[in-house]
Amino acid sequence: MKALVLEEKGKLALRDHIVEEELGPRDVRIQLKVVGVCGSDVHYYTHGAIGPFVVREPMVLGHEAAGVVTEVGSAVHEFKVGDRVCMEPGIPDPTSRATRLGLYNLDPAVRFWATPPIHGVLRPSVVHPADFTFKLPDNVSFEAAAMVEPLAVGVHAAIKARVKPGDIAVVIGAGPIGLVTVLAALAAGCARAIVSDVDDDKLAIAAKLGPVTPVNVRSRDLAEAARAETDGWGADIVFECSGNEKAAADVFDPLCPGGCVVYVGIPLEPIAYDVAKAQVKEARVEHVFRYAHVFPRCIAMLSSGSIDVSPLITRTFPFSRSIEAFEYAASAPRGEVKIQIDMQDQA
Amino acid sequence: MKALVLEEKGKLALRDHIVEEELGPRDVRIQLKVVGVCGSDVHYYTHGAIGPFVVREPMVLGHEAAGVVTEVGSAVHEFKVGDRVCMEPGIPDPTSRATRLGLYNLDPAVRFWATPPIHGVLRPSVVHPADFTFKLPDNVSFEAAAMVEPLAVGVHAAIKARVKPGDIAVVIGAGPIGLVTVLAALAAGCARAIVSDVDDDKLAIAAKLGPVTPVNVRSRDLAEAARAETDGWGADIVFECSGNEKAAADVFDPLCPGGCVVYVGIPLEPIAYDVAKAQVKEARVEHVFRYAHVFPRCIAMLSSGSIDVSPLITRTFPFSRSIEAFEYAASAPRGEVKIQIDMQDQA
Amino acid sequence: MKALVLEEKGKLALRDHIVEEELGPRDVRIQLKVVGVCGSDVHYYTHGAIGPFVVREPMVLGHEAAGVVTEVGSAVHEFKVGDRVCMEPGIPDPTSRATRLGLYNLDPAVRFWATPPIHGVLRPSVVHPADFTFKLPDNVSFEAAAMVEPLAVGVHAAIKARVKPGDIAVVIGAGPIGLVTVLAALAAGCARAIVSDVDDDKLAIAAKLGPVTPVNVRSRDLAEAARAETDGWGADIVFECSGNEKAAADVFDPLCPGGCVVYVGIPLEPIAYDVAKAQVKEARVEHVFRYAHVFPRCIAMLSSGSIDVSPLITRTFPFSRSIEAFEYAASAPRGEVKIQIDMQDQA
Amino acid sequence: MKALVLEEKGKLALRDHIVEEELGPRDVRIQLKVVGVCGSDVHYYTHGAIGPFVVREPMVLGHEAAGVVTEVGSAVHEFKVGDRVCMEPGIPDPTSRATRLGLYNLDPAVRFWATPPIHGVLRPSVVHPADFTFKLPDNVSFEAAAMVEPLAVGVHAAIKARVKPGDIAVVIGAGPIGLVTVLAALAAGCARAIVSDVDDDKLAIAAKLGPVTPVNVRSRDLAEAARAETDGWGADIVFECSGNEKAAADVFDPLCPGGCVVYVGIPLEPIAYDVAKAQVKEARVEHVFRYAHVFPRCIAMLSSGSIDVSPLITRTFPFSRSIEAFEYAASAPRGEVKIQIDMQDQA
Repeated sequence: MKALVLEEKGKLALRDHIVEEELGPRDVRIQLKVVGVCGSDVHYYTHGAIGPFVVREPMVLGHEAAGVVTEVGSAVHEFKVGDRVCMEPGIPDPTSRATRLGLYNLDPAVRFWATPPIHGVLRPSVVHPADFTFKLPDNVSFEAAAMVEPLAVGVHAAIKARVKPGDIAVVIGAGPIGLVTVLAALAAGCARAIVSDVDDDKLAIAAKLGPVTPVNVRSRDLAEAARAETDGWGADIVFECSGNEKAAADVFDPLCPGGCVVYVGIPLEPIAYDVAKAQVKEARVEHVFRYAHVFPRCIAMLSSGSIDVSPLITRTFPFSRSIEAFEYAASAPRGEVKIQIDMQDQA
Repeated sequence: MKALVLEEKGKLALRDHIVEEELGPRDVRIQLKVVGVCGSDVHYYTHGAIGPFVVREPMVLGHEAAGVVTEVGSAVHEFKVGDRVCMEPGIPDPTSRATRLGLYNLDPAVRFWATPPIHGVLRPSVVHPADFTFKLPDNVSFEAAAMVEPLAVGVHAAIKARVKPGDIAVVIGAGPIGLVTVLAALAAGCARAIVSDVDDDKLAIAAKLGPVTPVNVRSRDLAEAARAETDGWGADIVFECSGNEKAAADVFDPLCPGGCVVYVGIPLEPIAYDVAKAQVKEARVEHVFRYAHVFPRCIAMLSSGSIDVSPLITRTFPFSRSIEAFEYAASAPRGEVKIQIDMQDQA
Repeated sequence: MKALVLEEKGKLALRDHIVEEELGPRDVRIQLKVVGVCGSDVHYYTHGAIGPFVVREPMVLGHEAAGVVTEVGSAVHEFKVGDRVCMEPGIPDPTSRATRLGLYNLDPAVRFWATPPIHGVLRPSVVHPADFTFKLPDNVSFEAAAMVEPLAVGVHAAIKARVKPGDIAVVIGAGPIGLVTVLAALAAGCARAIVSDVDDDKLAIAAKLGPVTPVNVRSRDLAEAARAETDGWGADIVFECSGNEKAAADVFDPLCPGGCVVYVGIPLEPIAYDVAKAQVKEARVEHVFRYAHVFPRCIAMLSSGSIDVSPLITRTFPFSRSIEAFEYAASAPRGEVKIQIDMQDQA
Repeated sequence: MKALVLEEKGKLALRDHIVEEELGPRDVRIQLKVVGVCGSDVHYYTHGAIGPFVVREPMVLGHEAAGVVTEVGSAVHEFKVGDRVCMEPGIPDPTSRATRLGLYNLDPAVRFWATPPIHGVLRPSVVHPADFTFKLPDNVSFEAAAMVEPLAVGVHAAIKARVKPGDIAVVIGAGPIGLVTVLAALAAGCARAIVSDVDDDKLAIAAKLGPVTPVNVRSRDLAEAARAETDGWGADIVFECSGNEKAAADVFDPLCPGGCVVYVGIPLEPIAYDVAKAQVKEARVEHVFRYAHVFPRCIAMLSSGSIDVSPLITRTFPFSRSIEAFEYAASAPRGEVKIQIDMQDQA
């Protein structure tokens, strides 16, 4: 019954670790099957902190997860033992004002897996609220289901953008979040995604995801590329997924009049934002923070084939080699998008 | 230089017929290449009228069209001779209040091809405003381009519905408009379309268009089918495309709380609308009338492959046999969706 | 410690009646101060039922209420004893899908005061969830606060309509719900409300509420009146508040192209709905069911003076005469809008 | 027949100046009655340029105007000689893509009065398109009508914000644009406006416009003030009307989760924009550029009394003293909001 524990910055252990959890009436207990490795997990490993969140005590990593229900609370009617599921990693306060308005992702009291001091799920099992647990259709694999968490970020961004069928999107950044945003934007009706990055390997993966125009901004101007694809009008939507301050400042250049910018990536510093440029186009700028009410949508699209995440799952490690998985991920290997850990050998 | 002229109800002629048209400064002249046969064309042929629009003088039929620019007006800079194009068949008054608001389809003064007394385009060439003419990418065929007009109805409906990625849609009616709505709804982000009809042949075509659940309402209750696909919650959107009064009255049964109904089909008589049923779900009900600003979106999606209309083009006649084409279409042949006329032999 | 009990259809009693209520951790206990008499209360009295809701056992009436907090649950931090408050009468299941989406008014499991078998609040005190209890600023009287419940219906309708400043609204029906909708529509930015009814007394009250054009539809055509106020364009929004089947069917006549209809009143029977008429204007039709998240908005507008409900409170009875109040209300007295019961003498 | 001509930077002349204008079929000729002095007029006078727009030849000033129709073009049916009117000062290209979409304010080809090289209207008469001319009801004075242009900026901002009734707004900056935004926000349904500035005189004027909380940010923190008015939740909308880079950067502090920021003021330099702060609240940020389709709304609200602009018209000069009016305006006099020029003595 081992867990992958981040003992402190830079030090991982695969060891016995029991997270004490009581099964409440509206909770389910879930045996983990597949857990994805997220950049934030790796960042806690390599830096010991993300912003104000500092690892002060040993913490289990992992928050992109799928598994099987092994026990259900007394007031849970929608699940039964054996159900295949995936889970939202953030649990808000159900009585907060934000939650009651339906904006539970904006509740400051949210408790999020693998964000100190909350343990993640690279461990045998977890107790979780039924309200944040989602049943999987038979044709959605545990691997795909463990991709729902990052995919939900892209789908949430596409919903915020209010994509109309036939829109042309720019997606800045071809890392994992950029790529799920490409998938989401195309599924949401974009006729084409112009994807920018400085890394040709990443752009090559993006180019395989559908009607994608890859633009390496080392050699081609993004705004010019957007004009070229739109008779000079500009892109309907710009999804900023790089978190790069310069890129985030330049979002209005490729945008059409009346267009929409969505900030998905999180720049570390304030950016040089040109209000006047945004005004002459009357840009609408949306900001996303995780997602809300999106998991069922992702599962439906994976099940129907509207979205295929398999090209993004580029490597899998068994749980027994999860330390190695993290060391590999921390080396920023070229050509990798999502590394997952198969929990089959967890016992 | 012949045209297909509806002389009067029930009487078609392929004969010389010159529509006098002056080329204004913002007009282009277009040689017709492919023209689709629409139910309204057939209805004028068989009934001589649609509602208040009565054929009182010989009228050229046809309004779903693609062609090649042969002459451009003095103030047209965006087209040149030889450009492959498709055209919107309705021309509004540019100074009307509706047009200036961007709602040009709601302008009562709109002049629409093959709606008396305006001639259609089953003829060698037509003069048309550049503003309602659209350039085709090389990879969009004339056949596909002549499908843009009906497709635009479906895409306009999907825009009005404000589809979110992962929505589940019901589409009532698997005729040509139902099928383009299925294509549009799926392209716009619906994870699945539940399509209802009483005709298994039509449902079989629908089932090939993507993640579609066909429901023959002779043998299965539509609301039950919607609940089965949505854990009992109901469909996010119901597109009514049958125009059947009974079907149009029952739209709230398969709908989820907070869901959206779009009336696309046009029932001949007022329907028995249950306000209280719509209220307990706080349904939003949208109504569509043709389309506005949608042609470029359709062309972009045809070009990128987001939408493939080829399964809907089930038969093509040469122009010299266009009377036969109309007789065939008027016989309501099973398994046909869209019949097109190839203008290649028009001279 | 008496309550106003509807023993059965047509039979009221002011008698001892104890509603057993436990104070949960997130509950407050409230002493009632003012309770309004709603048409639904009167209808239960005169008919013993509303649709499927039948009074089978003695039931306390009243659901438009304001009072003072007398006890707070262990997990309630936002209230203290002595706080002046008003309350939402409907309590949804917090774990239902509708509630979690923020659409708690659409939760079929909602328990609503004075809707069988749930007791209303014409009684000394009530236990209520803190989440559905709202603090009153000093300048909002108990009388005004007891008007928040009906006002919330109008404000919810105005929100659904997405009123833009300068819109022209039609409000059909000048009963209590029509009049709160007039107040809400004007507060929400309508430049003018054209209010229709067949009763000149009601229209005279409406005319005092702001820039209102009263239209007695016995002598003037509503669509003509709407055109006269809008240069022939039509009203931006039509709020149907009469529940009359004929009026509800005719909503598209006074509407402008691209306009919005909101069904607030509840017709008893399906209406003859002309889809084609709605289509040529591409009407958006919204349906409202009570309200959600609206009470704080109403209180803020009462406090700031944006809305003044005092013209609608036309008569007050002491609690000791509440049977008389109901008899009077049941007589449909002319010129009365809202009758309230002052609970001061309740002990 | 004199005009007020800016000969060059710093040099005004009241002299004969004929602007040659032909009356097209859809034009009207208007005798000017009242013209307001805008900050941009004053800026051209004192600086000779605004950004890329440089006064290279003598230019007539003035673009906030009302007058009387004296001649109508052959295709104008909606006006007759003697009609009292006000006018939009910007004329877009009717065939541009932006205009056809209904976004005519975003058309880069727009010709705007008193923006070089286009003459303004401090002159006897002007020829103007009927489509951008608006009839005045009898109860709207020329003075009020000449305020429609700046008011339209505020109303457009309120429309972009999608104000809901009961919202709490922050308006940053109590200059002319801040004050019209206060009027618009309150008319659009805001229960209260928290208005910030560093000038107590301006705040004193703001405080008279309705339910306004003035905040002098030299002595009180704006975010704290917003929390104080909203139980700690934050304001629903923040209108940035100061154009101050620091103020424009701090807009997210007083905002509630899920709230909206509207940039109305135009900062000269890029601002330090904190994407992460906007993300944790999922702020929606709108940018406005002038207005579109708003004049009829303003006129309707002035006529019905929903908005009263008279407190903002603080001084009037006769046309013969218009040079003095500009000198006075250029002195930045305390307590003045809008200075107008009465054209009665223009001959």
